[in-house]
Amino acid sequence: MRIDVKECARLLKEHNNILILTHAHPDGDTLGCGFGLCRALMKCGKRARVVNADEIPSKYNYMESGLANEDFEEEYIVCVDVATENLLGPLADQYSGKINLCIDHHGTNTEYAENLLLEETASACEIIYKVILELGVQIDKKIADCLYTGISTDTGCFRYASATPSTYRIAADLMELGADNGYINRLMFETKTKTYAHLEKLAIDGMKFYCGERVAIITVTQEMYKITGSNEQETESLAPLTRQIEGIEIGITIREKNDGTCKASIRTFEKVNAADFAKSFGGGGHAQAAACRFDCSVDEARKRLIEKCGEILG
Amino acid sequence: MRIDVKECARLLKEHNNILILTHAHPDGDTLGCGFGLCRALMKCGKRARVVNADEIPSKYNYMESGLANEDFEEEYIVCVDVATENLLGPLADQYSGKINLCIDHHGTNTEYAENLLLEETASACEIIYKVILELGVQIDKKIADCLYTGISTDTGCFRYASATPSTYRIAADLMELGADNGYINRLMFETKTKTYAHLEKLAIDGMKFYCGERVAIITVTQEMYKITGSNEQETESLAPLTRQIEGIEIGITIREKNDGTCKASIRTFEKVNAADFAKSFGGGGHAQAAACRFDCSVDEARKRLIEKCGEILG
Repeated sequence: MRIDVKECARLLKEHNNILILTHAHPDGDTLGCGFGLCRALMKCGKRARVVNADEIPSKYNYMESGLANEDFEEEYIVCVDVATENLLGPLADQYSGKINLCIDHHGTNTEYAENLLLEETASACEIIYKVILELGVQIDKKIADCLYTGISTDTGCFRYASATPSTYRIAADLMELGADNGYINRLMFETKTKTYAHLEKLAIDGMKFYCGERVAIITVTQEMYKITGSNEQETESLAPLTRQIEGIEIGITIREKNDGTCKASIRTFEKVNAADFAKSFGGGGHAQAAACRFDCSVDEARKRLIEKCGEILG
Repeated sequence: MRIDVKECARLLKEHNNILILTHAHPDGDTLGCGFGLCRALMKCGKRARVVNADEIPSKYNYMESGLANEDFEEEYIVCVDVATENLLGPLADQYSGKINLCIDHHGTNTEYAENLLLEETASACEIIYKVILELGVQIDKKIADCLYTGISTDTGCFRYASATPSTYRIAADLMELGADNGYINRLMFETKTKTYAHLEKLAIDGMKFYCGERVAIITVTQEMYKITGSNEQETESLAPLTRQIEGIEIGITIREKNDGTCKASIRTFEKVNAADFAKSFGGGGHAQAAACRFDCSVDEARKRLIEKCGEILG
């Protein structure tokens, strides 16, 4: 059932022992939602914890720091920034069909939860901000840092067309509530480990162009992780690079997994809908940023993706 | 004399035939101020025009487009985002000592103008926004685009610690007044020409580290422009790259000019004041981003800069 912010806050107040699930391969928005909401619920005197399928990249450590990891039998399960149950990754089997509440900003949400609060804001953290205000919780610096992180990371640091005046104003409110914008943005956007800097160099050197130079593809192989000492957690910043060259309409980053499968991140401009593109391979996402998985080699995946690009661009 | 926004608007209203000067090697902030203010003054029924020492990079064309370039004898001269008269470049000789009004956000402003409106905001366009409101001019889409551009470019797209809640809220207001944030940010931050992409690759390949890897230096030579087909106008985005690698405290980009002199852009974090650093070579700027010029070869300039880094980092 679709609910509004008020009803969402009412449901959260009514329950206790709340488990919050983020999506697999967690990013700043899902983690910002998870830890921001968890901290707010604990300030309401509730037991709550955040659970992720995958390891949390260390750059997000500040969100979790100082948070007591409470042990309790879950009574109410909340998904944040999770469009479909299979995005829970390895946790999907355990929780599928059991989600009580989902708070999300993806238009492609499959309405899998008992109750769904969906607003197509630039980031899911903007919705969590409203829910926390409705809960009547005083937002502290830690919560502000979590929510600011989600807003900033999901908008490419306020860069994308998806960011609205409301996005900016919520960010301004959070800065006044203590969010350390300079620190967070530097950590998210201006800090490259030496291993990542090396990986990025290899990735850019290997960038290939197709369809009359309207498509750019970066391929990241397991071999490249070995050479550079980098890893998959560090590849988030590569996808935007694919559409930065003028004339490019579709930018794709293919990442080889260690089990021989792979994942593709799709970036587009207005002309091409990335969510539709990814959907045709069983994936999903937003109009200009989406992703899908392939149970095949990177070479085979690349072939299929280029074919699809050819169809779309005509 | 130091004046406030109200007095600044009063002075502008009192005068006509207004010449607006931007700093040499113009960036988004000085141009946003210049064209934003010029358009606002024309809406007040005044004659005004913007004059730059150097060619305006073509990516900023939209600010000027459709603006009648009026010919008139100047009666009132305004500098925007110009900290010192010598930053007027080749125009300094002509206008030195004749500046009636300066609107600026640099703490290092030398108070060279008859009247100075100085606020240490993240961008000078934030001050121009307040001045235009005080003028009572209805901000249209064109003015909003100009001012948003300055705010966005001077804050690295809302990334730097210099951006305040007020910065974000003015940007939100401008978006509501028609500023095309998605288009502007893509053009400013996400569009690399193929020639620039090539130059960036060469620059990163040639990045060198000093002082126990706490200093990173990029050198851009005239030879590199020849190889890549790029030019100095396209080098603005290189400077931030120097401080992105973890552990770096001072990032320097040295650009060789075609007359054998060179210019260095300094980027730092809190520990090192970039304005003080640049000042020791006769330059200036902000706490974390500054610049200076050298009347010597890039090799000699690099040597002097490394020496200074050694002194500062100890």
